[in-house]
Amino acid sequence: MNTLIKNVLAVLPNGSTKKTNITIKDDKIFSIGIVPEQFNADKTIDGQGKLAIPGFVNAHTHVSMTMLRSYADDMKLMDWLENKIWPVEAKMKKDDIYWGAMLGIAEMIKTGTTTFADMYGDMDKVAEAVEETGIRAVLSRGMIGAAPNGMAALQENCTLFEEYNNGADGRITVMFGPHAPYTCPPDFLKKVIEKAQKYDAQIHIHLAETEDEVKECQTKYGKTPIALMEDVGILDCGVLAAHCVHLSDADIAIMKKYNVRVAHNPGSNLKLASGIAPVKKLLEENICVGLGTDGASSNNNLDMLEEVNLAALIHKAATLDPLAIPAAEALKMGTYYGAKAVGLADTGKIEPGMKADITLFSMQGTQWTPCYDAVSLLVYSANASMVDTVIVDGKILLDKGRLTTIDEEKVIYEANKCAEKLTGKTLKN
Amino acid sequence: MNTLIKNVLAVLPNGSTKKTNITIKDDKIFSIGIVPEQFNADKTIDGQGKLAIPGFVNAHTHVSMTMLRSYADDMKLMDWLENKIWPVEAKMKKDDIYWGAMLGIAEMIKTGTTTFADMYGDMDKVAEAVEETGIRAVLSRGMIGAAPNGMAALQENCTLFEEYNNGADGRITVMFGPHAPYTCPPDFLKKVIEKAQKYDAQIHIHLAETEDEVKECQTKYGKTPIALMEDVGILDCGVLAAHCVHLSDADIAIMKKYNVRVAHNPGSNLKLASGIAPVKKLLEENICVGLGTDGASSNNNLDMLEEVNLAALIHKAATLDPLAIPAAEALKMGTYYGAKAVGLADTGKIEPGMKADITLFSMQGTQWTPCYDAVSLLVYSANASMVDTVIVDGKILLDKGRLTTIDEEKVIYEANKCAEKLTGKTLKN
Repeated sequence: MNTLIKNVLAVLPNGSTKKTNITIKDDKIFSIGIVPEQFNADKTIDGQGKLAIPGFVNAHTHVSMTMLRSYADDMKLMDWLENKIWPVEAKMKKDDIYWGAMLGIAEMIKTGTTTFADMYGDMDKVAEAVEETGIRAVLSRGMIGAAPNGMAALQENCTLFEEYNNGADGRITVMFGPHAPYTCPPDFLKKVIEKAQKYDAQIHIHLAETEDEVKECQTKYGKTPIALMEDVGILDCGVLAAHCVHLSDADIAIMKKYNVRVAHNPGSNLKLASGIAPVKKLLEENICVGLGTDGASSNNNLDMLEEVNLAALIHKAATLDPLAIPAAEALKMGTYYGAKAVGLADTGKIEPGMKADITLFSMQGTQWTPCYDAVSLLVYSANASMVDTVIVDGKILLDKGRLTTIDEEKVIYEANKCAEKLTGKTLKN
Repeated sequence: MNTLIKNVLAVLPNGSTKKTNITIKDDKIFSIGIVPEQFNADKTIDGQGKLAIPGFVNAHTHVSMTMLRSYADDMKLMDWLENKIWPVEAKMKKDDIYWGAMLGIAEMIKTGTTTFADMYGDMDKVAEAVEETGIRAVLSRGMIGAAPNGMAALQENCTLFEEYNNGADGRITVMFGPHAPYTCPPDFLKKVIEKAQKYDAQIHIHLAETEDEVKECQTKYGKTPIALMEDVGILDCGVLAAHCVHLSDADIAIMKKYNVRVAHNPGSNLKLASGIAPVKKLLEENICVGLGTDGASSNNNLDMLEEVNLAALIHKAATLDPLAIPAAEALKMGTYYGAKAVGLADTGKIEPGMKADITLFSMQGTQWTPCYDAVSLLVYSANASMVDTVIVDGKILLDKGRLTTIDEEKVIYEANKCAEKLTGKTLKN
């Protein structure tokens, strides 16, 4: 199928914008600029008044936790986990995982995300939701090595790899998901490495999220989490590391050496009071930093434009440097750097040959006026309800704000039913 | 005119929510709960699936600067001001002020704001825009005492008071607007105090926005800006102080003594790298802290829900306390505390007898699902495009997302024309 996006203001790989035409052949961007004579469009999208960006890459989330959005907020981390989140998670069945994933994917597509990296349990149900909805995903089975089901979870991650890696027309990649150094002892991590190497798969892990985690790791192992991971050998596998809030200069040097890619989650780090990651320093060291929402229960949404906005804002104040992360750089973090972070080389840029993963924002209305600089307006003024069209792998998943592969009403109905059953609460809306 | 909002989920003054009915008689809220038998509604709004909050109070902005949105971003403060903002501002004519104000007011109404506190020049044109559009405003003439036109500006502030205070059916209040201690020497401030006392008017001023400002004030006067203001006598007038980012404990004690009310501008403070204000401490000292957007050229929008969200998020990370400012408290900062901050006692709460300044959010869609806690969802998950209805002084200014008193298309057209003329740029959109 050939699609033409005509007269659209496109954000180019260098961060500048240009009024142009984008042609799409099957799953790839075919050309940018004058429409090639031999190109016959099956579908033409009027790009007038729209901004085309590479689709957002949500580099770290737990999509099925969307089911717990607003269930418990403004609490201390361990109180929140032990008394609210874990008891409900323990009751979750495959159906809850599926409808939680559908709810989250619906939200992600509506807010312009084309790829997400996920870590949770019962990931076959998340993979199913990815297959059905047409989004792109990097999936890993979240494993608590210290839990009784640690080895079973590792086996599930292997099965997930065998059944789904490169599945859904190549839209699914599978990674291994040991949860964190404080939940996965070195012995367990070594077993994970063995399997990851067997399948030539990469690792998705939480690292250095809180001060307490770093302190405990120092006490127990005499090392920071990053240094411990180097020792154990995890970093040899290719690592997507979520959070990385509390890092020493030595940690950063190790990360650079092993090309560790970071999923920075500003919304979640602020909300859970984890702190502000040293992102400016990481970028200066040429470490790849993408952006993630984390789970919706600690955010409370999956809106990547908000993360891009936060990334542009908070590091200016944290470093007292108004040039710390300019708008165009924040947008790259939410798109191209995110794609690199989750290990995908062929998405995240509007460029011929790349996967046709594109989001169009409507530039109508007061928040886009006057438009001296469209990228500034996107990052600092717009919101995700202004997403008009979303294309993944060349297929239109959102058309003028309407989901084409998801029955949104049904998803909301089913998600509410699951949520009421899980929590015993009557929902207000 | 009598209006009934039926079956709406309302945020009550204590921060809880309740499914109820709200009746409005002329400009005031008449009742909450069962509709009184004698009440005949001229207009009924179906509140099903909607959340009613007190309209947002934008406690600090420069609305006509909306004209410079995205004109210059990601720059050092003085470079930005001297080479970008001030040269364009010097060219602004009354028409630019008017259309800039109309553009900003259109955006504020669409995003749920019912009151704003403004400081700028040619404020008669802003007052005109307030009159025409039906919004509520607290206006002050921004005065640079050190500038050649300082005394003329003070005279304009007096004229503004005489012509507009309590104007537009009581929707306009006038304050005096000496810009800041670093632009208004003590002698000038004393002249402002004299006039403010003559008219029994309050003061709107920028205080302690940057580290440099505090240092310079220390060097020049041997005092912090707050202590200097106490000395000069400004704090006796009743003060709305914008920013207050860099405060000592002694400053906070002075602010408490004089009941200084703060307009906290998280978005602007982050974007300009001013720092993070000690808001948790201020609230603990029972100092009134409202929220503002500052001008759209340093934000880049007038979206108060984003400020509420930032206020809830950034102070958690800054204090490493996830309970620092809970969602309901952040919402109060954006509504009731804001009303108190700008000196209005009769708005900011959904309560009988208060002005009927109400915003309804549509709670449809994925971002509101599941709805365990509507206030959490509003603050952490929703966005301002979900505003459905806005009522100010009992009149509907936004009806199902449509502006009733503003021709949005014309405003955008005229604002773009002014912006092109001012900057010599051809606008992209």
